[in-house]
Amino acid sequence: MKTSASLDFLFHPQSIAIAGVSENVNKFNFGLRYLQGLQEFGYPGKLYPLNPAGGEVNGMTLYKSLREIPGEVDYIISAIPAPFTPQLVDEAAAKGVKAIHFFTSGFSEIENAEGKRLQAEVLARAKKGGIRVIGPNCLGLYCPAGGLSFNGDYARTAGQVAMISQSGGNAAHCIQEGAARGVYFSKVISMGNGADLNESDYLEYLAEDEETKIITAYLEGVRQGPRFFKALEKAAKRKPVVVLKVGTSESGAEAAVSHTTALAGSDQVWDGLLKQTGVIRAGSIEEMMDVALAFQQMTKPAGNRMVIVGIGGGASVILADEFSSAGLSLPRLGLELRQNLINVFPTEAGRIFKNPIDLNNFETPDKFFRTMSLLDACEEADMLILHVAFDHFGLVSSAEKEFWVGSFLQLIGQSKKNLTKPLAVILHSYSSANMKPLAQKAATELAALGIAVFPSIGRAALALGRFTRYCARRSPWNR
Amino acid sequence: MKTSASLDFLFHPQSIAIAGVSENVNKFNFGLRYLQGLQEFGYPGKLYPLNPAGGEVNGMTLYKSLREIPGEVDYIISAIPAPFTPQLVDEAAAKGVKAIHFFTSGFSEIENAEGKRLQAEVLARAKKGGIRVIGPNCLGLYCPAGGLSFNGDYARTAGQVAMISQSGGNAAHCIQEGAARGVYFSKVISMGNGADLNESDYLEYLAEDEETKIITAYLEGVRQGPRFFKALEKAAKRKPVVVLKVGTSESGAEAAVSHTTALAGSDQVWDGLLKQTGVIRAGSIEEMMDVALAFQQMTKPAGNRMVIVGIGGGASVILADEFSSAGLSLPRLGLELRQNLINVFPTEAGRIFKNPIDLNNFETPDKFFRTMSLLDACEEADMLILHVAFDHFGLVSSAEKEFWVGSFLQLIGQSKKNLTKPLAVILHSYSSANMKPLAQKAATELAALGIAVFPSIGRAALALGRFTRYCARRSPWNR
Repeated sequence: MKTSASLDFLFHPQSIAIAGVSENVNKFNFGLRYLQGLQEFGYPGKLYPLNPAGGEVNGMTLYKSLREIPGEVDYIISAIPAPFTPQLVDEAAAKGVKAIHFFTSGFSEIENAEGKRLQAEVLARAKKGGIRVIGPNCLGLYCPAGGLSFNGDYARTAGQVAMISQSGGNAAHCIQEGAARGVYFSKVISMGNGADLNESDYLEYLAEDEETKIITAYLEGVRQGPRFFKALEKAAKRKPVVVLKVGTSESGAEAAVSHTTALAGSDQVWDGLLKQTGVIRAGSIEEMMDVALAFQQMTKPAGNRMVIVGIGGGASVILADEFSSAGLSLPRLGLELRQNLINVFPTEAGRIFKNPIDLNNFETPDKFFRTMSLLDACEEADMLILHVAFDHFGLVSSAEKEFWVGSFLQLIGQSKKNLTKPLAVILHSYSSANMKPLAQKAATELAALGIAVFPSIGRAALALGRFTRYCARRSPWNR
Repeated sequence: MKTSASLDFLFHPQSIAIAGVSENVNKFNFGLRYLQGLQEFGYPGKLYPLNPAGGEVNGMTLYKSLREIPGEVDYIISAIPAPFTPQLVDEAAAKGVKAIHFFTSGFSEIENAEGKRLQAEVLARAKKGGIRVIGPNCLGLYCPAGGLSFNGDYARTAGQVAMISQSGGNAAHCIQEGAARGVYFSKVISMGNGADLNESDYLEYLAEDEETKIITAYLEGVRQGPRFFKALEKAAKRKPVVVLKVGTSESGAEAAVSHTTALAGSDQVWDGLLKQTGVIRAGSIEEMMDVALAFQQMTKPAGNRMVIVGIGGGASVILADEFSSAGLSLPRLGLELRQNLINVFPTEAGRIFKNPIDLNNFETPDKFFRTMSLLDACEEADMLILHVAFDHFGLVSSAEKEFWVGSFLQLIGQSKKNLTKPLAVILHSYSSANMKPLAQKAATELAALGIAVFPSIGRAALALGRFTRYCARRSPWNR
């Protein structure tokens, strides 16, 4: 077996042939979709569309076979029906192709002996020809640095987070959710049935990959248990690994088999092994991206003591409950800090100078900066949490809300520059028609400043709980 | 003590005086905000702004005292500083006022003996004058049927859901989240410190209120435990009651005391009592609204067996896990139904004819309707779940996605008309800039058709789990 480090070549092909591009421009012409997607995404290498009937599409020649292509072909994306794939593999071997990604379904995952036979045959021919196989039954690779994508409009920004996904849809979901939050990827692998290259191969590779600082994975099951857990242990020693392991229910496990042939395995065993190896187990796609966001945007805190500041008594009580239940510590504020805060805001009515601090309103930019600077310097906090509840303002007109929220967000951005402690921001409660776009714009702007922004109290608490527990496990708090 | 039924008068005053309206138009002129809010909301009765200095604001006379007001005054909203409130109460008694809502803070909730003394004094004088007190330290009442609101831009649509809230911010949040989801309110009560009228009074009233079919409550603690639990038991026998009880952590309980003087009490005791009384306990504001939505939009199912249909293998596995973990049943599809589905979609590759059903795509409107009609007629399902993952499409261009999703939603709307089984729709995974507005528009449109729409798999599973468990407890499944 080749070493996993050799998988670099998958992500940086110099030339790609796409099998199954037809002249017929319709929604089931998936070959054409791949071609157009790569063009739109800005793939820098050579692209060769293939069709045994020849012809032309969008001004590009359709090659009748791999043999006819003038230059070398590093990589093939195959969107032809499953029954024709064995022949394609033989031709690819003759051409010296290094890897084929089979988009097409209709292999082992269907309830049909012919599908399983076909997959075995394709695999045997590929092995003989020295070709690595991605899939079948998957969307393939997304790697902004290599210009690879399965959708033209995905983020072109390369980042530090990698993802292994046994679902193309969930890979797509993560890429979009990530981009919306400021989480960018080094590599996303939609791996399908994993007939040749499987989750262990990719994990071994990503553990060593210098472009990847955080590994995430959506897993339905693994093919080589002992190998995978060894890889997991090794990877988790080097970088944070966040896993969403599904198929925990009987129905879910059955769906997983039909989806990508994965055997879900005992959830208890999985849970134990993930804990043993120091892997963070996420409960949903959103949570996995939330945790990745924390690792990407936040510096390691000196401890797990949070001081929370914002506006709203009800929100404060909920914040206290959710953060406590996530295992985070909300220390009491000392007399000195309380007095310092009261000096900034002498009117006590409507304010709560406990933790969470409810300031009712910030009154002036100066008072906001003084508050943040007191908290940054205080003995009590290892990490600061700011929260804004957009719909909590009962008495304020829409125009005023917009102005008020806009100024507040500017203040957060300015304040962030001077903070020495890790900061997370929660922008929550924005259901009203006028607040929703404002909140979403604000989240995007703060994300662009490198701030970890969470869309609800519960999600922030969960992600920050996992983040700080991981930090504490890796190196005990230095206070 | 008056009977709770008498509280109707609070929600339908013929005239309101607002104490503490000044000529100075700035953001801390809360009296003026209440006045303008009521005008904008369309309050149909008489409004009398008060200010001891007299003057005029927005063309309205500021009355120097209650005595000067020509007509009767049913209700007062007081935004004057706490120290002046005892005198206002005496004047109100002389005028024959029935209720005063104290917006102002600075009473028992602050750490200052004077605040507690003031609250006791106000209360004693109100009792003597036959005046009921709402608050202090709260936003007051929202009742679309009575034209009452603490914000001019809230929904004017009256609905079946009531809310008791010990937080003005969370009440505001629910009103906005509700409106965005199609949940409308009969009455929302932001009750603050509950010095006179407390959670027990409101609950006893809402249990009998014919305009209220579903009761929700955000509670930090209660003042009269035995009375409250009796009221809860009685209310829960008549209608679904959903409670978000907070202050479960040490920090949360401390925040609750400072917020509205509420004593949180033992969470174990609360949990037991809520279970005993058949109350649904929600874990967050969002969950409380999700559950209210299910009760408002869905008919009682004949059992807890769900058949789920949509697009995406990965989403199907997650759906199966989340619904199973919420205690819902995903029955296996019988051979006949499977064969009928395969007859509609003869190509099996990329599709999964299990439960959840992954159709990969619906191909034509006719195939969609045939699928829905098969599921509506099938033996397996008591309830149908449709899901759409907006960002799961890897290969589709933005324009095509918009078209595709738009058609699909039209189909759901049309299909709903012919269904006999309860239906819920999950519109999820819409993080991309182009899908987000589309998903939100779609959710609003489907909500307007009376469909229960959930924004994530996890939230749908949780809410539907609670909804079906409640239905089963009230009357055992009739199959």
